[in-house]
Amino acid sequence: MKQPAKRTAFFISDGTGITSEALGHSLLAQFDSIEFEQITLPYIDTPDKAKEAVSRINNAAIQDGTRPLIFDTVVNEDIRSIIAESSAFKIDVFSSFLKPLESELDARSNYSVGKSHGIVEQTRYKDRIDSVNFAIDNDDGARTRQYANADIILVGVSRCGKTPTCLYMAMQFGIKAANYPLTEEDLEFSKLPDVLEAHKHKLYGLTIDSFQLAAIRHERRANSRYASLDQCDFEVREVEKLFKKLNIPAINTTNFSIEEISTRIMAQAGLNRRMN
Amino acid sequence: MKQPAKRTAFFISDGTGITSEALGHSLLAQFDSIEFEQITLPYIDTPDKAKEAVSRINNAAIQDGTRPLIFDTVVNEDIRSIIAESSAFKIDVFSSFLKPLESELDARSNYSVGKSHGIVEQTRYKDRIDSVNFAIDNDDGARTRQYANADIILVGVSRCGKTPTCLYMAMQFGIKAANYPLTEEDLEFSKLPDVLEAHKHKLYGLTIDSFQLAAIRHERRANSRYASLDQCDFEVREVEKLFKKLNIPAINTTNFSIEEISTRIMAQAGLNRRMN
Repeated sequence: MKQPAKRTAFFISDGTGITSEALGHSLLAQFDSIEFEQITLPYIDTPDKAKEAVSRINNAAIQDGTRPLIFDTVVNEDIRSIIAESSAFKIDVFSSFLKPLESELDARSNYSVGKSHGIVEQTRYKDRIDSVNFAIDNDDGARTRQYANADIILVGVSRCGKTPTCLYMAMQFGIKAANYPLTEEDLEFSKLPDVLEAHKHKLYGLTIDSFQLAAIRHERRANSRYASLDQCDFEVREVEKLFKKLNIPAINTTNFSIEEISTRIMAQAGLNRRMN
Repeated sequence: MKQPAKRTAFFISDGTGITSEALGHSLLAQFDSIEFEQITLPYIDTPDKAKEAVSRINNAAIQDGTRPLIFDTVVNEDIRSIIAESSAFKIDVFSSFLKPLESELDARSNYSVGKSHGIVEQTRYKDRIDSVNFAIDNDDGARTRQYANADIILVGVSRCGKTPTCLYMAMQFGIKAANYPLTEEDLEFSKLPDVLEAHKHKLYGLTIDSFQLAAIRHERRANSRYASLDQCDFEVREVEKLFKKLNIPAINTTNFSIEEISTRIMAQAGLNRRMN
């Protein structure tokens, strides 16, 4: 049977839409023969917004010549019943899983919106803000006197991905992550800067393919020695040698997303996610 | 019926575990009468790791005196069948939804790990790194000459949550977000700094309850005028007046998580998520 050219997928939520989006992405990624237009509709928390969503969905159905997909994590029953009237194929996350969970847990779920807030959430929020501030304050070797409080210290050559990785670990998991750039000088002497020696057990290395490093550096300083393939080759080779010599665990970031780099480091370094 | 004191929930994935974690959190948040210990097991991608996971699950069952819950987003069939042998109640995300999707889409899903990588992912990665760098470069009014390239510019008093919100929007959605602190002086004259005037349509205000602001500032500079409730009261009152006078849309961050603040701003400012 011939496939339609495109399918539209809606991720619908009465909250941020992040759960529905993550789930929908993962499921749709399993169908790489089909092109999806993916639209997130967060905060669908009133009947009016739900009706507006339904009209967007129905318009997409007409446009595509085929019914859209809906990944629905709305909790409120009134909103759900409005959305159910749209001409879409619906993956209904809560109704699929809440009933079996209720019976397994021998408890009723609170079918209400926004129940997850409160004191616990507020503490988590503060932890994460603190960790984000820590990552910024301790970015790029700017300061080193807080290293005693760090959960982990990422080391690697300039532009290998240290900063976004630290920030992601802070934001997502409340991890206090510092980072320190290893310079040409460190690499020539094949030795850690003194300031890192005391914290050697907290170090984690990032490395990257030299071709990609050159491309990234090129955008920062085009045609510089810094961005040349020779220089990148040298730095990457030496930094990998150093990691090996000092038994510093390391990950090559070239083919990984920020999420993957962060979660792999945490798993390998035995750091616990603090966002549960 | 009496509830057991605690249930252990495992989020199991052959990838980052982020989807399984997000889904599991959302579902368990619907049962606030029960205390859950939540454990994420990412990168369960070999039979050995799966067997280790099963032994952790079975130990938790013994410890708790009741079977744990599993939220499973493993794709690989061999791994899945090992995990299925554990003594747990399993919410099986892929098998629940992939079959109905296959039939709706009239296509087979690729039952393989890591298929979602490739050129597309790499572009997204670069976009996000660029956006994170943009957020850092344009944090706290440090630079203003790139405002023409900003998708949005957050304004508000010191410590109201601008920086983490910018970084989250960058990291999660590839949005270029700058932020600029409104100082006492700006507030006294009840007028925007000149540098913001040209970009007024990109401004979005953050505000916060003065009591919480005082608490946050207190941690930064205890017992300072900056952290006093009087000062915080004054700044918050004036900044809210300014937002109103100039028709700058604004959000009160007090009771929201970083995800909620970010996704609400994006929805209200009409910014598209770039991570689809």
